[in-house]
Amino acid sequence: MRNTLGHNLTLTIFGESHGAAIGAVIDGLPGGIKVSEESIKAALAKRRPSNNGETSRVEKDEFSIISGVFNGFTNGEPVTIVIPNKDTHSNDYTVNQGLARPSHADFVAHAKYNGFEDYRGGGHFSGRITAAIVAAGAIVIDALEVKGVKIGTHIEQLGSVKDARFNATNPEIDVVNAKEFPTISDVSDKMLKEMESAGKDMDSVGGIVEGAVAGLPVGVGEPWFSSVEGELANALFSVGGVKGVEFGLGFGFSSAHGSEVNDSFSVQDGVVTTKTNNNGGINGGISNGMPVIFRCAIKPTPSIAKEQDTVNVLTGENAKLSIVGRHDPAIVRRIAPVIRAITSFVIADLLSVEFGRNFLVK
Amino acid sequence: MRNTLGHNLTLTIFGESHGAAIGAVIDGLPGGIKVSEESIKAALAKRRPSNNGETSRVEKDEFSIISGVFNGFTNGEPVTIVIPNKDTHSNDYTVNQGLARPSHADFVAHAKYNGFEDYRGGGHFSGRITAAIVAAGAIVIDALEVKGVKIGTHIEQLGSVKDARFNATNPEIDVVNAKEFPTISDVSDKMLKEMESAGKDMDSVGGIVEGAVAGLPVGVGEPWFSSVEGELANALFSVGGVKGVEFGLGFGFSSAHGSEVNDSFSVQDGVVTTKTNNNGGINGGISNGMPVIFRCAIKPTPSIAKEQDTVNVLTGENAKLSIVGRHDPAIVRRIAPVIRAITSFVIADLLSVEFGRNFLVK
Amino acid sequence: MRNTLGHNLTLTIFGESHGAAIGAVIDGLPGGIKVSEESIKAALAKRRPSNNGETSRVEKDEFSIISGVFNGFTNGEPVTIVIPNKDTHSNDYTVNQGLARPSHADFVAHAKYNGFEDYRGGGHFSGRITAAIVAAGAIVIDALEVKGVKIGTHIEQLGSVKDARFNATNPEIDVVNAKEFPTISDVSDKMLKEMESAGKDMDSVGGIVEGAVAGLPVGVGEPWFSSVEGELANALFSVGGVKGVEFGLGFGFSSAHGSEVNDSFSVQDGVVTTKTNNNGGINGGISNGMPVIFRCAIKPTPSIAKEQDTVNVLTGENAKLSIVGRHDPAIVRRIAPVIRAITSFVIADLLSVEFGRNFLVK
Amino acid sequence: MRNTLGHNLTLTIFGESHGAAIGAVIDGLPGGIKVSEESIKAALAKRRPSNNGETSRVEKDEFSIISGVFNGFTNGEPVTIVIPNKDTHSNDYTVNQGLARPSHADFVAHAKYNGFEDYRGGGHFSGRITAAIVAAGAIVIDALEVKGVKIGTHIEQLGSVKDARFNATNPEIDVVNAKEFPTISDVSDKMLKEMESAGKDMDSVGGIVEGAVAGLPVGVGEPWFSSVEGELANALFSVGGVKGVEFGLGFGFSSAHGSEVNDSFSVQDGVVTTKTNNNGGINGGISNGMPVIFRCAIKPTPSIAKEQDTVNVLTGENAKLSIVGRHDPAIVRRIAPVIRAITSFVIADLLSVEFGRNFLVK
Repeated sequence: MRNTLGHNLTLTIFGESHGAAIGAVIDGLPGGIKVSEESIKAALAKRRPSNNGETSRVEKDEFSIISGVFNGFTNGEPVTIVIPNKDTHSNDYTVNQGLARPSHADFVAHAKYNGFEDYRGGGHFSGRITAAIVAAGAIVIDALEVKGVKIGTHIEQLGSVKDARFNATNPEIDVVNAKEFPTISDVSDKMLKEMESAGKDMDSVGGIVEGAVAGLPVGVGEPWFSSVEGELANALFSVGGVKGVEFGLGFGFSSAHGSEVNDSFSVQDGVVTTKTNNNGGINGGISNGMPVIFRCAIKPTPSIAKEQDTVNVLTGENAKLSIVGRHDPAIVRRIAPVIRAITSFVIADLLSVEFGRNFLVK
Repeated sequence: MRNTLGHNLTLTIFGESHGAAIGAVIDGLPGGIKVSEESIKAALAKRRPSNNGETSRVEKDEFSIISGVFNGFTNGEPVTIVIPNKDTHSNDYTVNQGLARPSHADFVAHAKYNGFEDYRGGGHFSGRITAAIVAAGAIVIDALEVKGVKIGTHIEQLGSVKDARFNATNPEIDVVNAKEFPTISDVSDKMLKEMESAGKDMDSVGGIVEGAVAGLPVGVGEPWFSSVEGELANALFSVGGVKGVEFGLGFGFSSAHGSEVNDSFSVQDGVVTTKTNNNGGINGGISNGMPVIFRCAIKPTPSIAKEQDTVNVLTGENAKLSIVGRHDPAIVRRIAPVIRAITSFVIADLLSVEFGRNFLVK
Repeated sequence: MRNTLGHNLTLTIFGESHGAAIGAVIDGLPGGIKVSEESIKAALAKRRPSNNGETSRVEKDEFSIISGVFNGFTNGEPVTIVIPNKDTHSNDYTVNQGLARPSHADFVAHAKYNGFEDYRGGGHFSGRITAAIVAAGAIVIDALEVKGVKIGTHIEQLGSVKDARFNATNPEIDVVNAKEFPTISDVSDKMLKEMESAGKDMDSVGGIVEGAVAGLPVGVGEPWFSSVEGELANALFSVGGVKGVEFGLGFGFSSAHGSEVNDSFSVQDGVVTTKTNNNGGINGGISNGMPVIFRCAIKPTPSIAKEQDTVNVLTGENAKLSIVGRHDPAIVRRIAPVIRAITSFVIADLLSVEFGRNFLVK
Repeated sequence: MRNTLGHNLTLTIFGESHGAAIGAVIDGLPGGIKVSEESIKAALAKRRPSNNGETSRVEKDEFSIISGVFNGFTNGEPVTIVIPNKDTHSNDYTVNQGLARPSHADFVAHAKYNGFEDYRGGGHFSGRITAAIVAAGAIVIDALEVKGVKIGTHIEQLGSVKDARFNATNPEIDVVNAKEFPTISDVSDKMLKEMESAGKDMDSVGGIVEGAVAGLPVGVGEPWFSSVEGELANALFSVGGVKGVEFGLGFGFSSAHGSEVNDSFSVQDGVVTTKTNNNGGINGGISNGMPVIFRCAIKPTPSIAKEQDTVNVLTGENAKLSIVGRHDPAIVRRIAPVIRAITSFVIADLLSVEFGRNFLVK
């Protein structure tokens, strides 16, 4: 559905960039999950802009949990988190009102919503809404960790700078989760420079976020329309800027031979593993017990300061656009925690479908 | 859901490779869509193995429409297509019973279904089931064409041989749909040789299928969890062998700058288009009126004749496996019509959500 | 969704009264449920017309299970049952073509499906389709019984003849399930006479079917939009002819006082029960461990031989209608097994949501 | 799903009686629906307790719309309404902590949520949450009225006092919507006395709410699992206290003959109507253009002051319970606007499925 993700465990999101608030409703959690406000704060901190040329809009992200938590634990009912919008400079946007930013959603929103869209700051299409996903995700990520399921994301590429890839059979999840600028190898300075350089050029730059899920039991996901790949991809593509998703070798499979890339099984002490993990932990849409490994292609932020050709949706005429306002020259770093959060929902939902509502607490 | 795809227009599939039959139920079509058995036959023919080293299992794919069609038109009720399985050599599979084929679903199916899985020929995980999708898709593809929405797929890559990519603003849909071996440029012979060569080596090879949807109105799809990208990706990843999906430039965005790849809008005679189409026709998850362009990475067929290491799921011991039976050294060609079919469902469903049930006939 | 019922365990139905076949797809069953063709036959026999004035259309209901069952057990994939239509006298219906039977679906089907509806014998609206539900339900009923969950239905009322109601704290499920004409007290002869009498008068008569579910664990169902009452009611109202559904005292609550009808709890040996069961086993939408008790009001079969006023949907003119063809003067007896079957799906689905897919086998 | 109702137009609710706030998210509304805060206030006022013996908890129901509305119109994105809880006397509930109120959800909530339920005032099971449904419904009710679809509810029965029933072919919707105590005939004083009398006796009393929907086009709803009856019933049973739902004659059909109750069609000036409306505007699950008429049985409020037997869920022992706190001796009057609101969602959702998202504005 539109703004609701999941089957047994659902996430519903709402809010516009410059409206009163953004937020999320998580439904289907069992009673008895510990809710740590510190975890939520820490997760939100990782998504906030740094001082390295990212947007100068600074949101404190002060959230309130207004339902579903009682005495520090989930009570089994919908958990609702609300984050008021505060540092909104709506004037930045009225300057260019009607001028559809290229590669952004302004044009389609105007058409789809009959001209009633909230055009300020991208409205509901804004990356701002991902703060609610990150806050909600922190609860689910903690609950999954208690069950031995760990999720990590890192910046595998930012423009021309590349990080190492996850070790597919033993991904460095703890390593990347411990860092503010999550990379495996020591490339953060180069990436920050790439980002700053794009900003100075009134431009933006893309990248790749890689994700890993370790500890997933065998048998999660379904053969066809609820495969681990399909469910994850649907969620990942919901994140603005993601334009490609691949699992395991992904597009690297295209020129490979089966004999090179098939993952042989072996068994030791009753535990079946694969020697390699080119399939990213998924066979036939179902988890095989190896880590789930995936990569998301992130396009350059469409909002750039350089002058661009466009149309004015209000007048129907061609126009020139120079975007003022506060924008990230790259959203890759800020998307990494969003992808971690949204992955946690998909994984917890699939576990809930297979093992029932109380899986996370029993 | 597991075997049901879609919201307002749904596709439910069933059947195992060596069971009595496979089939599909399409629900939500309006009354009055013309159903052409010729179109279904033609679509099935494109999915059947050729004589070029593809599997020697030859299914006539004789289908019956057992509900939902009356006097040659949909009657508004579920359309059910059944295709009996005939050329089943189940003995091929009992030889290796218990030996999980690497990178195939045998191992996860055994674990997930408590040891009761139909192991013959991959059971419900078999590519055989895609015949039902192709048959059902032919009805939807025809209906969409009446409304000016065209879908095409071609083999962009097979092993080391590459075809041209679609012209992103004016894709060669008619060209590829007219061919039995769908490519844009003249590379079919090279691709066939690549496939035969892999077969001779008792091996298999991967590839890329590219798809295009032209004629989609502006405003289809939703900002978050029902984006055109997400809905398509979920469906595309359901097809066995697909391990990566990208839209427009996809992973090509990762090292690009915004100023290079943003798609500028322009308006002429009231019609807004983009000069380039790097976003593959989708902004903010919603169609912008330009062709939808996507690519699917296809892994090499996991079933190869070369000996491989594996485990026996019945004894729990390590084992060696040499796969006998009839298998494709590459499924890329046969997947192209499947991807076309499944794309048609996603597109028709999104149109139905936006414009109502009768969109396809009014 | 239209023809798909359920969340984690789904039932999809298809077929028209005079089409090639009717059938059902059950998705979400775990691997390892024993499938008894004898149970299916026995269930279908209870739904077939008797010689007591019910319709003279005699269908053998010879079914085929074409997917999802392997060596006598579910294999975890969609179970598809197909029942060909054989004894179809389509000519009966062309006589009155265009004449909308009052209180039947002919008029709405013509409008909704743009004039392309299959008008023969009510098409997809026919009670004929319930044979597929009954066949599919037999598998689920058996699986639930293994887990200690029993479902029974009886004819509480047929016209002016009333049976006893279920003992709400200990319903006579085994008693009614053992009978061909399911009643608690000895009223079957009177009911049959009532039915025959209506038939002789070229008329029809309504009734009430009461259902009970025993052995349901505490905690199944959800507080709001997936309550046991709501989920069951949605499914029960799908059965043609059902126009009212009530739980426990139902409409009897309307003039009662809380002190008279509240169900007091008591505990013995750690097991909490209620002394009375006026709430029909459900508090706040959730099972409380007592039997679920519900009643369905069944309207008289709309198809009667007496002349009626109507319109001709083809000409748009007023007309007179005398229905020839083969019809039941009361469908209450034949609906009882349908209600039992559909109840089994709702209960198994709710159990699956709460306890996971393998609940039925572990 | 648990707390989300609907297919294309969804309503998600959250909150507990004594938590920080309750609220609702409406998703799927088109851009351009006028949102009147006055309408919302007026709807909430009808649900608030009067001075006639209803609960003395007085909530101002001061709501905030925190997303989805821009410049007084829906912007096409999720509309979120939050209503803070203010007049919460949680101490009232700690007195009896652990004592499960008979016929209330305390016992099942304790079991289902692993002992972590918010027991204060019934938590998420409280009638308090219906304020959010009423607020959200006001927006949809207004939008439907613009399209000529009107919904009304009245108190058909309160204990032993009965109102007239709606004229089934021309229901008195405007009459009942104009009244604070909605009845057709002049029985409000008698009903209030009945309610007060029950309160004085430390008891409670049940009733019936009747609803009507006029102006619905022909063809809305589906034959099987998304029938107008089934969809409405599922939503209506979600409202606490509703234990029976019937359409048209409902249980009155049980002893009737077809010739007496069939609704004959007639046509005049191209418009088909039925002479009677015993089917409550629905044939085969689909609207036939006549008013939809339904009735809901409401049980007496379970919370009564008289001493009752029960169990203590914390100690597992039998106990006596005398409920202090503020409770309604009858919730029938306060449920009427809730049923009106929730009906509006079901109807708007079915219209959206049939005619597309923009039906409400185009």
